[in-house]
Amino acid sequence: MGTTTCRGYKWSGVCAGIKKDHKKDLGLICSDVPAAAAAVFTRNRVKAAPVMLDAERIRSGVCQAVIVNSGNANCCTGEQGMHDAVAMAAKAAQALGINEDLVLVASTGVIGAPLPMGAIASGMADSVDKLDEGGVFDFAESIITSDKFPKIITTAVEMENGETFSICAVAKGAGMIRPDMATMLCFVCTDAVAAVDFLSESLAAAVNQSFNRITVDGDTSTNDTVVIMANGMSKTDTNTPAARDTFQKALNEILLRLAKMIVKDGEGATKCVEVVVEDAASDQEARVAADTVAESSLVKTAIFGEDANWGRIMAALGRSGVTIEPERIDIYFDNIRLVENGLWTGEDAETAASAILKNKELTLRIDLKTGGKGTAAVLTCDLSLEYVKINSDYRS
Amino acid sequence: MGTTTCRGYKWSGVCAGIKKDHKKDLGLICSDVPAAAAAVFTRNRVKAAPVMLDAERIRSGVCQAVIVNSGNANCCTGEQGMHDAVAMAAKAAQALGINEDLVLVASTGVIGAPLPMGAIASGMADSVDKLDEGGVFDFAESIITSDKFPKIITTAVEMENGETFSICAVAKGAGMIRPDMATMLCFVCTDAVAAVDFLSESLAAAVNQSFNRITVDGDTSTNDTVVIMANGMSKTDTNTPAARDTFQKALNEILLRLAKMIVKDGEGATKCVEVVVEDAASDQEARVAADTVAESSLVKTAIFGEDANWGRIMAALGRSGVTIEPERIDIYFDNIRLVENGLWTGEDAETAASAILKNKELTLRIDLKTGGKGTAAVLTCDLSLEYVKINSDYRS
Repeated sequence: MGTTTCRGYKWSGVCAGIKKDHKKDLGLICSDVPAAAAAVFTRNRVKAAPVMLDAERIRSGVCQAVIVNSGNANCCTGEQGMHDAVAMAAKAAQALGINEDLVLVASTGVIGAPLPMGAIASGMADSVDKLDEGGVFDFAESIITSDKFPKIITTAVEMENGETFSICAVAKGAGMIRPDMATMLCFVCTDAVAAVDFLSESLAAAVNQSFNRITVDGDTSTNDTVVIMANGMSKTDTNTPAARDTFQKALNEILLRLAKMIVKDGEGATKCVEVVVEDAASDQEARVAADTVAESSLVKTAIFGEDANWGRIMAALGRSGVTIEPERIDIYFDNIRLVENGLWTGEDAETAASAILKNKELTLRIDLKTGGKGTAAVLTCDLSLEYVKINSDYRS
Repeated sequence: MGTTTCRGYKWSGVCAGIKKDHKKDLGLICSDVPAAAAAVFTRNRVKAAPVMLDAERIRSGVCQAVIVNSGNANCCTGEQGMHDAVAMAAKAAQALGINEDLVLVASTGVIGAPLPMGAIASGMADSVDKLDEGGVFDFAESIITSDKFPKIITTAVEMENGETFSICAVAKGAGMIRPDMATMLCFVCTDAVAAVDFLSESLAAAVNQSFNRITVDGDTSTNDTVVIMANGMSKTDTNTPAARDTFQKALNEILLRLAKMIVKDGEGATKCVEVVVEDAASDQEARVAADTVAESSLVKTAIFGEDANWGRIMAALGRSGVTIEPERIDIYFDNIRLVENGLWTGEDAETAASAILKNKELTLRIDLKTGGKGTAAVLTCDLSLEYVKINSDYRS
């Protein structure tokens, strides 16, 4: 990955003193010029102040900078919270010498505590001073909370006509993760030339096949935000069907890779599991069945214990509410069919499935055989002792 | 409690060798005479063989004996499983010298493994030999799996006219517990005289306000069964409105107490929490909101950590899909209002709420203030390290 090759973006991440442990907690992205921009936000009805502010500002379709803090979600903070979000953007705008309407804000961390504006103000000058084309690692570190590693993907894309553009995307997220969306922030910068409408559609499609199908703990955050900026500095235009297609594929792949990183970094996760449901009555039923299995505490603890406890999968399917005939269901661990027509296939398959469960990544494939052809796939992780340790201790 | 005072019932619990650890695993209840009977079963679409058999047999409204094994759920076991359930009842009937149609069967334990019929057959004679009016403790021990303690309630009830009857109820359950119903078995014996229709309605009402509003892990079992038998041996009739009322109240209280015992014995549970939602748009929305909070892994781990992390409660409410205005919500820990109109009420309330979280039992009351007057209350427990240990290890 090295330093980002995405033209015209500078990044920084500094320690402003918001987190207790003196880690980086204030991140800044700035484009050399105003960029076309689009965003997707949490569907949780409890929305953090920065989410409400950004939802308003993104309607202009233009953004030049994003200021992000970790350690405090600025959520359930009332009028003061909204005032603080506006002030945080204004301070960044002032330090950067740009219009405050061009600045988006994101926050992540504990809900309900007032944003420490003193710390944020004191870190702002440092944050602008340290802006650098190679600052993406510092930025990525500054936005994480319980993440074990920063999540960055940079890709150069060549189009059919030989022109190139780059995309650099940074994400955070590890807990409070479930579909629609994960507790996560993601910032996507590209130097392609792109219209706002296209960016908006493209982002929605890419989020749908990535962040909207991962789950860590079934909890949805109040702060989820994915922002995409396109500053056009590569001069490579995406205004043809072929170019749009190339752009979409690249964006899909990047967001899917980031989504997988989030699941692998799921709080306490030791395994990444793709739950695939096939031949459900509809795609929607397939998704409900996949989510129910992927979010079952009993399934997730069994996976942590490397136990091919397929009875818990059957029980989860049975309570999911979707159309099933238990005596038709097949369940595969990777390519091993452990259950056929609702019945255990025997010792050999059990031994093989147990061996597969020792891997870090596996697929749990459930063929409902309803004849309805509905399919869905979601990504989940196991539920470990570490998850409980992290989350019983998070604020203390 | 001492020995049961419920006339005309004998109980036993023996070690038949189904469990690996040589604990009691085969339980038998036998009434001296055929009893009026009713039952409620799991709504999971994956149903164990004994559930399917009992659902058929209970239609007669008569039952004289129940044979129960722990250590194996006889679920997802196909035709063989149904054959085994029938054979298990037949063996009990033969040993007791009664008609096999008068015998119900229940199983609890691992899903998907064939029922060890050899062990069950070998334990049957001992099981009948040991039948005793004071055998309820042995019975209660024989039906538990991951439970830490047996769950028995015996009550003598005096009616307005001075006549008395008794109810003795035994339950098991600790994991795979969620509303509709818990992973549980419950056997209620009474010596009252009761019509089958009344028993059936009365049981449904009592289950609704008890077992149907508890959750440990949001997973629903394939084997849930509650059976009530009324053998009439007290000669006290319940065939007047006043008598029915007295009976219903007693049954409600007993099942609610058993339900609370199950939550307190929730796998790894260190705390029992009643989640009350008030002034929701409807009772149904109140229930959805209460369930979402009660099943949130993040809320449950915070409670384990004795952390008054109300932001996670707000986030759960926000994703529950019910009508809320975040800026109107009040949240109480027992009588301490930690959140008012969506905002933290300050250090003093936080200190008081933290002290309340040190208790073994507490109430989390959420006033949505929608003006809709909908209410619901569910019982849950915390999510502890022990839960994960128990469930990652259960089969091994």
